[in-house]
Amino acid sequence: MAQMSRLDRAVERFTSQRAYLAGATALIAGLPGPVLEIGLGKGRTYDHLRRLMPEREIFAFDHHIHAPPDCVPDDDHVLLGDFRDSLEAARDRLAGRAAMAHADIGSEKPERDAALAAAVGPLIDRLMADGAVVVADRAMRVARWTELEPPADAGTFAYFIYRVGV
Amino acid sequence: MAQMSRLDRAVERFTSQRAYLAGATALIAGLPGPVLEIGLGKGRTYDHLRRLMPEREIFAFDHHIHAPPDCVPDDDHVLLGDFRDSLEAARDRLAGRAAMAHADIGSEKPERDAALAAAVGPLIDRLMADGAVVVADRAMRVARWTELEPPADAGTFAYFIYRVGV
Repeated sequence: MAQMSRLDRAVERFTSQRAYLAGATALIAGLPGPVLEIGLGKGRTYDHLRRLMPEREIFAFDHHIHAPPDCVPDDDHVLLGDFRDSLEAARDRLAGRAAMAHADIGSEKPERDAALAAAVGPLIDRLMADGAVVVADRAMRVARWTELEPPADAGTFAYFIYRVGV
Repeated sequence: MAQMSRLDRAVERFTSQRAYLAGATALIAGLPGPVLEIGLGKGRTYDHLRRLMPEREIFAFDHHIHAPPDCVPDDDHVLLGDFRDSLEAARDRLAGRAAMAHADIGSEKPERDAALAAAVGPLIDRLMADGAVVVADRAMRVARWTELEPPADAGTFAYFIYRVGV
């Protein structure tokens, strides 16, 4: 049995998420544009992002809503369905506009996750402004993105941060 | 909008749980008996408890199983259904035997939680050995229990720890 419990891992994960989101928020301070929360889940990081950036629009993507009602954006800012479809559908409205994306799409199935990350990376990319920042729980290889160093207090949990374009 | 986000609160909650469970584990070091995990949930604290105390039996209670399969005890150590019923049903087998209980039963409905805590406190009490420790996410008033000071590194999240009997 490995050393870390699921409780330990939850503490690590949420602590790292908080550090990465704070780091990304600082990096886009001068860049206008909405934020994409891809994988609304329980709404924890959505709730955090709206407090970090109360002035920005946030669009939330998920297969279906399972967040508490007070952590769900209004209908105009929710995009439901498979990420491949909803990200594609968002193109008309958001192409090249988003200043930050947080993709929290991982499961406990590494092969499924790698395939999903490969599929959604380019779809996310199309929505991002030049100079935007993408934070993700799975590695994504997109030609226009450069991986950045983790924030100083990021901890040891595997998380990823990319700058879009230059 | 309050200062702390749901992400902040998740970090606080899991960090506090870890401190309380470590504190309780130390307090029962000399006391034989099984551990009760009341509210298996996602299995995080069950997974943590079995690593803290690999030598102890752990019985998990929940309405239904929604933990990942690797965080569910064998059938002989799972008690399903309403806590009021499953704790009552466990009486024949466990009365006066348990060395620790962790009751993680709260929701976001304070009235529901207070009623449930009042109902399950005495039912948990019947299963506990003299000198046992109960950790809970909601306050419980049971005549035989004495509230203890939080562990040193417990943080600020509201959690409760009781010594059973003396």
